[in-house]
Amino acid sequence: MPELRKDPVTGRWVIISTDRAKRPSDFVRDRVEIRGTGFCPFCYNNESKTPPEIMAYRSDGSARDTPGWSLRVVPNKFPALRIEGTLNRQGEGVFDKMEGIGAHEVIIETPDHRKTLAILSPREIEDVLWAFRDRIVDLKKDRRFKYVLIFKNHGDAAGASLEHTHSQLIALPVVPKRVLEELEGAAAYYHYKERCIFCDIIQQETQSGIRMTAENDAFVAIQPFAPRFPFETWIVPKVHRSSFEESAKPEYSQLALILKDILMRLDHVLEKPAYNYVIHTSPIPEPADDCYHWHVEIMPKLTKVAGFEWGTGFYINPTPPEEAARFLKEATVPVYST
Amino acid sequence: MPELRKDPVTGRWVIISTDRAKRPSDFVRDRVEIRGTGFCPFCYNNESKTPPEIMAYRSDGSARDTPGWSLRVVPNKFPALRIEGTLNRQGEGVFDKMEGIGAHEVIIETPDHRKTLAILSPREIEDVLWAFRDRIVDLKKDRRFKYVLIFKNHGDAAGASLEHTHSQLIALPVVPKRVLEELEGAAAYYHYKERCIFCDIIQQETQSGIRMTAENDAFVAIQPFAPRFPFETWIVPKVHRSSFEESAKPEYSQLALILKDILMRLDHVLEKPAYNYVIHTSPIPEPADDCYHWHVEIMPKLTKVAGFEWGTGFYINPTPPEEAARFLKEATVPVYST
Repeated sequence: MPELRKDPVTGRWVIISTDRAKRPSDFVRDRVEIRGTGFCPFCYNNESKTPPEIMAYRSDGSARDTPGWSLRVVPNKFPALRIEGTLNRQGEGVFDKMEGIGAHEVIIETPDHRKTLAILSPREIEDVLWAFRDRIVDLKKDRRFKYVLIFKNHGDAAGASLEHTHSQLIALPVVPKRVLEELEGAAAYYHYKERCIFCDIIQQETQSGIRMTAENDAFVAIQPFAPRFPFETWIVPKVHRSSFEESAKPEYSQLALILKDILMRLDHVLEKPAYNYVIHTSPIPEPADDCYHWHVEIMPKLTKVAGFEWGTGFYINPTPPEEAARFLKEATVPVYST
Repeated sequence: MPELRKDPVTGRWVIISTDRAKRPSDFVRDRVEIRGTGFCPFCYNNESKTPPEIMAYRSDGSARDTPGWSLRVVPNKFPALRIEGTLNRQGEGVFDKMEGIGAHEVIIETPDHRKTLAILSPREIEDVLWAFRDRIVDLKKDRRFKYVLIFKNHGDAAGASLEHTHSQLIALPVVPKRVLEELEGAAAYYHYKERCIFCDIIQQETQSGIRMTAENDAFVAIQPFAPRFPFETWIVPKVHRSSFEESAKPEYSQLALILKDILMRLDHVLEKPAYNYVIHTSPIPEPADDCYHWHVEIMPKLTKVAGFEWGTGFYINPTPPEEAARFLKEATVPVYST
């Protein structure tokens, strides 16, 4: 019997379609393989082919926009939003619009074109996370921005246009709708229970164990109760904190370890799937300190979003999260530590 | 300069990325071609390969589940939801769930495997619309259902698993989140203005003409001000009405004509794209008579939804709707009448 499950944060219903239950091998898709053919603007010696770098991690004293970096942040060459200008909010009859002001940056995670985030060392992944933090802290100073979104598109099917491993950052002049929905859901729960919904989820999932996928000192990785997509995985810090960039120093190394572990497990079980991840964190001007709990959502790209999903905001998910958790837990992957 | 535009109904912001502006020919994609190879359960003589028919239009007095039909409605063989049972709402710690009760039906639009909806005759398309109406009217009697969603997935990229042209219907025990958002947005506008937002949009778009794509006695087809997708097209009845199934008889023939016209224009301009459409109509138990205005949303599948969209509920659209309207208006397609 299919089951309707409600996400306790957003209120989104999901159909867990057990009758069509799918094992990892049932998903028809392309493996994400690094081909390494053709010109790549993210490789060494091509620094002039991106806009000038915003920041880079360099241990050899090399000059800006030259080789020698281990991680590099540059403006997106084809930005969805522009950094210069004012919002200029205005109407057009019944409609509302403003200038597309914002920041759109690319975090090039390594100079090595052959690597994916999953196979970078924990230390290299930690640097990626520090770069996210450094950029958020800097962009928060710009009073025009209300939200900074960090995300990754890995593989063609997930919307990546360049294969050299990178994440993206977009700073926005409005708090996005999806973030507001989460904040409102978390606030409603907090006002009723006087507890954080994510803290309650961590407690329940840790006790039951059926959707737990991995755990370390600072984080749990779980399959959410009402996942939109097969093998959707959330990484949630154990200590309540509303904003990613305010994590304590050891948390970045712990996050690097659990993120690597989960990406390796997904690569193993789903044969190198395309995926997206998104860091869900508080808005800039009014962090929702008590109610909200930052976390990472990883969404392997295995199913197609179709008319039903567009019409309802519901999702049909053929893989119960309890089964996904079992497959991921049973995967044999190397163990890393800091 | 990119522009941020707000959908006045849902409040969803969209980035109209004029810097990346794309013409129809810039979208890399597969044409949807009918291959007609292999076994098809929706063709004549294969009626026993679907569950027994719920209804069919037959003018030759032929028997149920035999050839002779011009349109046939059957339960989905792999339904996302099941028709039998009770909802049995219950908790699981902090989580909420219920049985996956609902109806999931397939409307086989023609016995002719070679045809697409766009090339059916206006009269055949009108029959498809009457079938939608007949099924909604019937399912409304079941008190467990709160919403009936009608949608179509056309082409592999849009999630169609069978190429024989068909639409789908899902009756749901809850009003979907996306529908609630629309209803709430429309209600907020109505309470402030004492006018329907869709009626105001029709008036403004008819006057300005810049996003108007087609028009007949009963309907306008427009590119919405803040489209999520390139060439997204809405068909809206000129007379205010909250529910699709309560349309007057002549409106079904007018809708058939404008739907055919738009689908032919999309096929011409975008070279037979995959697409989804969704009928947006009122919930069953409490139709939002004054505030809400039913309509059809057609979404060609040209771009990929990636991390940014999942994280924000924002969309980046590289084709301004004014340009899309111009391309569609200029397309030369045959003119049909009833």
